[in-house]
Amino acid sequence: MKTKEYCYRMAMEVRDYELDTEAIVNNANYLHYMEHTRHQFCASCGVSFIDLQKQGIMAVVRKIDIEYIESLRSGDTFVSALWLERKGPRFIFHQDILKLDGSLVTRACVTCVMIIDGKLSRGDEVAKLFAAYL
Amino acid sequence: MKTKEYCYRMAMEVRDYELDTEAIVNNANYLHYMEHTRHQFCASCGVSFIDLQKQGIMAVVRKIDIEYIESLRSGDTFVSALWLERKGPRFIFHQDILKLDGSLVTRACVTCVMIIDGKLSRGDEVAKLFAAYL
Amino acid sequence: MKTKEYCYRMAMEVRDYELDTEAIVNNANYLHYMEHTRHQFCASCGVSFIDLQKQGIMAVVRKIDIEYIESLRSGDTFVSALWLERKGPRFIFHQDILKLDGSLVTRACVTCVMIIDGKLSRGDEVAKLFAAYL
Amino acid sequence: MKTKEYCYRMAMEVRDYELDTEAIVNNANYLHYMEHTRHQFCASCGVSFIDLQKQGIMAVVRKIDIEYIESLRSGDTFVSALWLERKGPRFIFHQDILKLDGSLVTRACVTCVMIIDGKLSRGDEVAKLFAAYL
Repeated sequence: MKTKEYCYRMAMEVRDYELDTEAIVNNANYLHYMEHTRHQFCASCGVSFIDLQKQGIMAVVRKIDIEYIESLRSGDTFVSALWLERKGPRFIFHQDILKLDGSLVTRACVTCVMIIDGKLSRGDEVAKLFAAYL
Repeated sequence: MKTKEYCYRMAMEVRDYELDTEAIVNNANYLHYMEHTRHQFCASCGVSFIDLQKQGIMAVVRKIDIEYIESLRSGDTFVSALWLERKGPRFIFHQDILKLDGSLVTRACVTCVMIIDGKLSRGDEVAKLFAAYL
Repeated sequence: MKTKEYCYRMAMEVRDYELDTEAIVNNANYLHYMEHTRHQFCASCGVSFIDLQKQGIMAVVRKIDIEYIESLRSGDTFVSALWLERKGPRFIFHQDILKLDGSLVTRACVTCVMIIDGKLSRGDEVAKLFAAYL
Repeated sequence: MKTKEYCYRMAMEVRDYELDTEAIVNNANYLHYMEHTRHQFCASCGVSFIDLQKQGIMAVVRKIDIEYIESLRSGDTFVSALWLERKGPRFIFHQDILKLDGSLVTRACVTCVMIIDGKLSRGDEVAKLFAAYL
């Protein structure tokens, strides 16, 4: 996979309720971290997911491919970063979670589409918001 | 993808706290459904994840590829089904979530490995438990 | 506290992703169990929370007092039961979680009110639905 | 209730996956916010919950009384604050969640005890850690 430069990154920290009995972050919580990062990225572009919803645009996840490389543990601080690609109606968020030393924790591709009135949209309205990053 | 017959299936129902503001089940919760299904499958083979842990075997998710085809909503009942494949040390759980009419909701491959004393194990102890399904 | 007879009860089982590093169910998940039970109780009365929302009635939790008496662990099956009381606009759900031998796991009072158009409602529409149990 | 001054406070923000279909933070997530705050407070006192566990001390929640006064919504930033009281073996965390203008969102009392070797401890080891705040 070609890796472009990240266009958004944010620091986060593990919360103990996200750990499982093995004392590592449960696999589903990485999806939460990544969703929060996408939403914060959108907010940084001037639009919230709730705003999109109010305009009748429903952003829906179609596909996630995620590799779990290392485990996060109690007390860990990490960076959640992304860069964005558009393929027709699909917005592909390339999302990495990294330790502070830069080593990869997870690497994922998250494919989203925009649904308007229950139908797949070309996503042009949303692409405009992300123009600087596509 | 070649599809073998499912070797385990269980019925589940959507709980409203799993919904997001779009009134569909949040993408991370499907990983919870699938994890619970894997653990119940293990239990049906006579071993719980907690038992494995007590024996020093840590089952860890290495990779998940999931397609979201349809959305689950409040009140939906569904079937979570899986079949299992072994590739060297990797246990690949092919996991589908289906509506009661048989239509696909999500389709996923979940790759797990077994860690013993912090090192990747060949997984032979665990493979024995699943012998009937491999 | 006077204890009336339960008017609704359902069986549930612990899912391993609900456990924390101490291998017991995390305190917040009991609120999830109880919410799901309230919603299933409503459904059994012929109305879902989503239906209420569509009618413009927002059921909101105002207060929860919960005692944690015993801990649930991996593999545990349990019963979530409730009985209902009305005090003016407040619907008080008395909710117990019990092991199969009848011993108490948690005991809670959950106070809900109904909001219509952003204002506290007397709750008469909802009380009608629960008439058999009040 | 007498209100002492807070001895710990931290800023947090709502994450959209914590919202329910009513677009407000689900009631169980406030327990997560408060748990994270208690654990961060402990860390600020020089001990993590995981450390306590490794020493054989299991901190367990016995009781939570929580009032939900206002709702948090998408985009909200808030302050989670606490002060601490000891009553025999019980550590009572008085925990408030406040909007940035100081208005109360939730007000809770969370009672914890320390379990050592499966038995209720007097909690003296832990009280020492909190000595500056008791």
